Amino acid sequence: MLKYAMIGGGPGAFVGGIHRRALALNGQAKLVAGCFSRDLEKSRAIGAKLGLDEDRLYATPEEMTRLEAGDIDFAVVVTSNEAHYPNVKTCLENGINVMCDKPFTHTSEQAQELVALAKEKELILAVSYTYAGYPMIRQAREMVARGDLGEIRFINCEYPQGWLAEMLETTGHIQATWRADPKRSGGVLSLGDVGTHIEYLVPFITGLSMTKLAARLDTLVEGRELDDNGTILTEYDSGARGMYWYSQAATGTVNGLKIRIFGDKGGMEWFQEDPDNLHYMPLGEPAQKIMRGSPEMLPGAMGYSHTPPGHPEGWLMAFANIYTAFCATIEHGDAPDFPTGEDGLRGVRFIEACLESSRNGTTWVDLE
Amino acid sequence: MLKYAMIGGGPGAFVGGIHRRALALNGQAKLVAGCFSRDLEKSRAIGAKLGLDEDRLYATPEEMTRLEAGDIDFAVVVTSNEAHYPNVKTCLENGINVMCDKPFTHTSEQAQELVALAKEKELILAVSYTYAGYPMIRQAREMVARGDLGEIRFINCEYPQGWLAEMLETTGHIQATWRADPKRSGGVLSLGDVGTHIEYLVPFITGLSMTKLAARLDTLVEGRELDDNGTILTEYDSGARGMYWYSQAATGTVNGLKIRIFGDKGGMEWFQEDPDNLHYMPLGEPAQKIMRGSPEMLPGAMGYSHTPPGHPEGWLMAFANIYTAFCATIEHGDAPDFPTGEDGLRGVRFIEACLESSRNGTTWVDLE
Amino acid sequence: MLKYAMIGGGPGAFVGGIHRRALALNGQAKLVAGCFSRDLEKSRAIGAKLGLDEDRLYATPEEMTRLEAGDIDFAVVVTSNEAHYPNVKTCLENGINVMCDKPFTHTSEQAQELVALAKEKELILAVSYTYAGYPMIRQAREMVARGDLGEIRFINCEYPQGWLAEMLETTGHIQATWRADPKRSGGVLSLGDVGTHIEYLVPFITGLSMTKLAARLDTLVEGRELDDNGTILTEYDSGARGMYWYSQAATGTVNGLKIRIFGDKGGMEWFQEDPDNLHYMPLGEPAQKIMRGSPEMLPGAMGYSHTPPGHPEGWLMAFANIYTAFCATIEHGDAPDFPTGEDGLRGVRFIEACLESSRNGTTWVDLE
Amino acid sequence: MLKYAMIGGGPGAFVGGIHRRALALNGQAKLVAGCFSRDLEKSRAIGAKLGLDEDRLYATPEEMTRLEAGDIDFAVVVTSNEAHYPNVKTCLENGINVMCDKPFTHTSEQAQELVALAKEKELILAVSYTYAGYPMIRQAREMVARGDLGEIRFINCEYPQGWLAEMLETTGHIQATWRADPKRSGGVLSLGDVGTHIEYLVPFITGLSMTKLAARLDTLVEGRELDDNGTILTEYDSGARGMYWYSQAATGTVNGLKIRIFGDKGGMEWFQEDPDNLHYMPLGEPAQKIMRGSPEMLPGAMGYSHTPPGHPEGWLMAFANIYTAFCATIEHGDAPDFPTGEDGLRGVRFIEACLESSRNGTTWVDLE
Repeated sequence: MLKYAMIGGGPGAFVGGIHRRALALNGQAKLVAGCFSRDLEKSRAIGAKLGLDEDRLYATPEEMTRLEAGDIDFAVVVTSNEAHYPNVKTCLENGINVMCDKPFTHTSEQAQELVALAKEKELILAVSYTYAGYPMIRQAREMVARGDLGEIRFINCEYPQGWLAEMLETTGHIQATWRADPKRSGGVLSLGDVGTHIEYLVPFITGLSMTKLAARLDTLVEGRELDDNGTILTEYDSGARGMYWYSQAATGTVNGLKIRIFGDKGGMEWFQEDPDNLHYMPLGEPAQKIMRGSPEMLPGAMGYSHTPPGHPEGWLMAFANIYTAFCATIEHGDAPDFPTGEDGLRGVRFIEACLESSRNGTTWVDLE
Repeated sequence: MLKYAMIGGGPGAFVGGIHRRALALNGQAKLVAGCFSRDLEKSRAIGAKLGLDEDRLYATPEEMTRLEAGDIDFAVVVTSNEAHYPNVKTCLENGINVMCDKPFTHTSEQAQELVALAKEKELILAVSYTYAGYPMIRQAREMVARGDLGEIRFINCEYPQGWLAEMLETTGHIQATWRADPKRSGGVLSLGDVGTHIEYLVPFITGLSMTKLAARLDTLVEGRELDDNGTILTEYDSGARGMYWYSQAATGTVNGLKIRIFGDKGGMEWFQEDPDNLHYMPLGEPAQKIMRGSPEMLPGAMGYSHTPPGHPEGWLMAFANIYTAFCATIEHGDAPDFPTGEDGLRGVRFIEACLESSRNGTTWVDLE
Repeated sequence: MLKYAMIGGGPGAFVGGIHRRALALNGQAKLVAGCFSRDLEKSRAIGAKLGLDEDRLYATPEEMTRLEAGDIDFAVVVTSNEAHYPNVKTCLENGINVMCDKPFTHTSEQAQELVALAKEKELILAVSYTYAGYPMIRQAREMVARGDLGEIRFINCEYPQGWLAEMLETTGHIQATWRADPKRSGGVLSLGDVGTHIEYLVPFITGLSMTKLAARLDTLVEGRELDDNGTILTEYDSGARGMYWYSQAATGTVNGLKIRIFGDKGGMEWFQEDPDNLHYMPLGEPAQKIMRGSPEMLPGAMGYSHTPPGHPEGWLMAFANIYTAFCATIEHGDAPDFPTGEDGLRGVRFIEACLESSRNGTTWVDLE
Repeated sequence: MLKYAMIGGGPGAFVGGIHRRALALNGQAKLVAGCFSRDLEKSRAIGAKLGLDEDRLYATPEEMTRLEAGDIDFAVVVTSNEAHYPNVKTCLENGINVMCDKPFTHTSEQAQELVALAKEKELILAVSYTYAGYPMIRQAREMVARGDLGEIRFINCEYPQGWLAEMLETTGHIQATWRADPKRSGGVLSLGDVGTHIEYLVPFITGLSMTKLAARLDTLVEGRELDDNGTILTEYDSGARGMYWYSQAATGTVNGLKIRIFGDKGGMEWFQEDPDNLHYMPLGEPAQKIMRGSPEMLPGAMGYSHTPPGHPEGWLMAFANIYTAFCATIEHGDAPDFPTGEDGLRGVRFIEACLESSRNGTTWVDLE
């Protein structure tokens, strides 16, 4: 069983607990050290709850990475966005593999530097785009690769949430406060928080590369400084086109990531709130509901399904699956089948291109 | 009971039969004359089937409108698009009220002329945007007016169909052939056929006026001359924003008109394939399903509901409801509560603006 | 175009208007005479509204059937249940074909007598089990006949409504009052109103004959005299078994007729509130959604589909389809493809058997 | 962190792995010993994979419970049904708390004896009815208790599966083989495997006690010895009535546990394949969708929700929640909020009563 340390994930930090549970679920790794907060007392309180040795709780990430290097197999960085860059850097500099929360860094220069550093040090650098861990996302990828959709023509991907339809960031709401603060979140609010999931998943499933985009970022809630909604027109290397919509101010929606892909032989639809079902519409035939765990599952997807069909697996299991692949690479040298630093870098460039387009009146921006 | 004549609606013309049934359903008007085809023999064959007198079947719309003027209360124009303009014109010139199929005309000049002519002659000119006849669309309008959504911030409206995911227009398919022919359909394929429904419905429900748009029209099926897919970014007079997507090449979708409206007090969703249910998501409360015919129906909507909840009403009934309002205005002088020539004109201008934007690389076009 | 008279369907009689609209929708028959109420003044008021000649409005059904015999092609009986028997009888005695609302009569003796009388007089006697008119019910029947389900093993059919979850019959509610009155409804409330629809549909779709049943009829609402809920265990001639549940006191349900059939090669599900979709689950393959109007429609079902897929057809169209078949038999001598008097008789025997079983503590009752 | 041993859960034993994951997910207990198989070599292979000390892997449950007593906090019994009784007994005799898989034992005498033994020894005896761990089942219970449904009138609970629609037990399928073997499963197949879940959940949610039942158990698949389908009419102490249907031969269904409860103030529906949503239909108001994690959650349910709404939690989390409550009682003496041996005993009595009723032609059987 691997050993890991966590940076961030202190009191009120929702996502830290999620990472810990995801790692427990599949049983690959054990938490042994932590710097959960910039306040050592808080870190100690959490460490005690989690059963960690007090001498493996640290005041700073730098101290921890220096002292734990060699004793841990990887570190998990789950701080707020502005701290991703320095924390990942200190891990890599001390020879520690890293799983970093998404979005990766504030700037593409930072991301580029971290990717280069990981490469130089031959370390594994991953970014936790959770939704790629869902078995039916894997199934979609395998079906596209097999040609079930034929040539892809159009992609409609949306990710509406509604929890920021109110001005929560002025109410002391921890999650809202740092996300809505330009300095801490990196110049975008919802584009980083939910929009980047779309950006990652589309090429993951389809194999297409985006070549250009035109974006309009909106601030729907009065008084907010950053975007809470946005629409992005896309074009891919094959000539296929797409449209993305993300929002955190879509009142009454919950966590509505939906992916629809249309090809010349069939269409496909997947909705995150009903993750065990993939809808496949072959041209001219009745629509099919493909269930997780059913005989239609293709090998590359079935390995990520753990319970029989009809016994819902959820979001935590998707998270666990990302870690399963990550740990398999660390432990057994398996080919990486998880979101990497390169993916994180591409995500940051996507954010930068959207900002550029939107500031210029939704003009087209070429991606390299 | 009113009396009407039909222009178009001959063999293979799907929509003519729909108009006839819609008029029968609510029993307001009786078909008494027709010029169903440019081929008099075909017209006679249909007329015989429908029980019309042979001497009220005509070789040309001009002949019919001249001779029937005074004997009919209105005419229905259901030809292919290119013939809307001359046929509506001949009706109006002969003093006959008209219901014209959508999209209205090829050019806004034509539309403008017809609207002016109707005004001058004090005739009723309507355009059959069917979906406005659904009771739950009326309910949505009433709820928005009452303030159930608060101030509207964002609108996401989509209308995907999949029946043109194949190159049907070269197979002799009647509906596909004229729609895909630039000369007959008016420079756009799917934007006119389905996109205009969105354009009409959004202000119908919300009361907002579109002030500018940026559009990308796509031709997803190789070899096709016109658009079969498109994405349109919009902005409204209140400052609200929106995004429209329409398609007839979205493989595996059927008739997926969906309207989602997000305000600061609630959200709303309606899906045409499940038309009796309106989903209302008040901010911070559980989502509600409001059923046609239930006690939540507001007066202006309840009048369009005819059967108890749970006894599905369909598309034909929505069509019939448009005619109910149209006939009420003709017969009793009721204030028009149906799509008018002005609405049709606005729809043609929308098409022209989308074409202009798309040709210029998705630039912003101001609407007057 | 056929001509018909109506008995019943006066003020507050919901179902009379439905029959009239259903007949208008497909345009087969024209209402020419009526005895809408036992009060001639009320009858005249309705007749005037419907544009009938005043001299074809009658004080009694007997008078009307005597005087209209020869001038009408059929009569529609839509009175409350207790008047079905005498009204159908007077029609048949005067040589008039009849469509009678369901449930047919109070006793099987009455039903038997009417069936024999129709046979003797060579008249067409139909009972309006509406739901058999839905195209997807026809599709289900054709698919079962083709063997898509293999041998049928179990049938689960339910029909919950919730509108009688309150004691409406003491509030002056017209529909509730006569239905809940033992003298007028025939000894059962909900079993006759909704339960009989199940009884009719199961053999219609499957071709199976029920051989025995055990029933428990419940009165869930305190103070009510008759059943408002019931569960029935069934067995069929093939050895297949089934379970029916009906209710009008299932709080919050609406008109939830659902049919599920399980065979050794596949399963099938249809829900009346979503009538255009039939769900087919072939053994070991993904579930399919078969849409009305799609290429999967079998010939015997496609004839009952009138609009393209995705343009919802509703309950009134199902009703119209029953009349289409009924009129085709009257006009062209087509083989009857609608619910007949024999079906109505079988329904009354079913009610009697359920009552017997329930009174005896849910014992098994053999059906002939 | 508590320590536990496992009895059963060897190769091919699906449910053992589920229990282990469920315990890991919430992190309350650590597996330290095991007798996974009657074949020590197999046990050792599994133990090695799970990282257990070889000297804590045992040849027999008796040996293990004797030697591990005092070193473990509880044992988990996940053998096939026939071994539940002796294994639970040996645990209790050695003073070890037990979580036993359901259904509890073959006979009510055995169940009674174990319950008495646990009481005498002051040990905690639990039975793993997983579905009670779903947060929305807890929410339903809290809402019923608060009176949201008013007085309950009727309960319709069904649990169809389709995986035994084929004769799998003669194909070497491990799960099917022991379940379908009368000697190993305890005289019933599907009634024990899925029917008992219904029996447990209804009183858990409603607080009602069943007073009598009438059952028909069916064998739908030819050649099978035991029941694979059944219908049960029920009555409760309050006078409320119910109907249960369970099946494992309902072709095309998956894991369709559905609970519908109807009261005089509202109705409620929950479907296991969509576990995060609870549908509440207050009398005369629009239906509401109550989501896990939303503000509508009541305190006793919210504690079982771990991630934000829209981030699906699944079946494993429900399982983990059962263990959370179980461990809380062991560790902190919390009042038991999990299914106990008494519940297991009641389940066995339910099975016996159903068998008696069915053998006697669906006669009524009184429950004490």
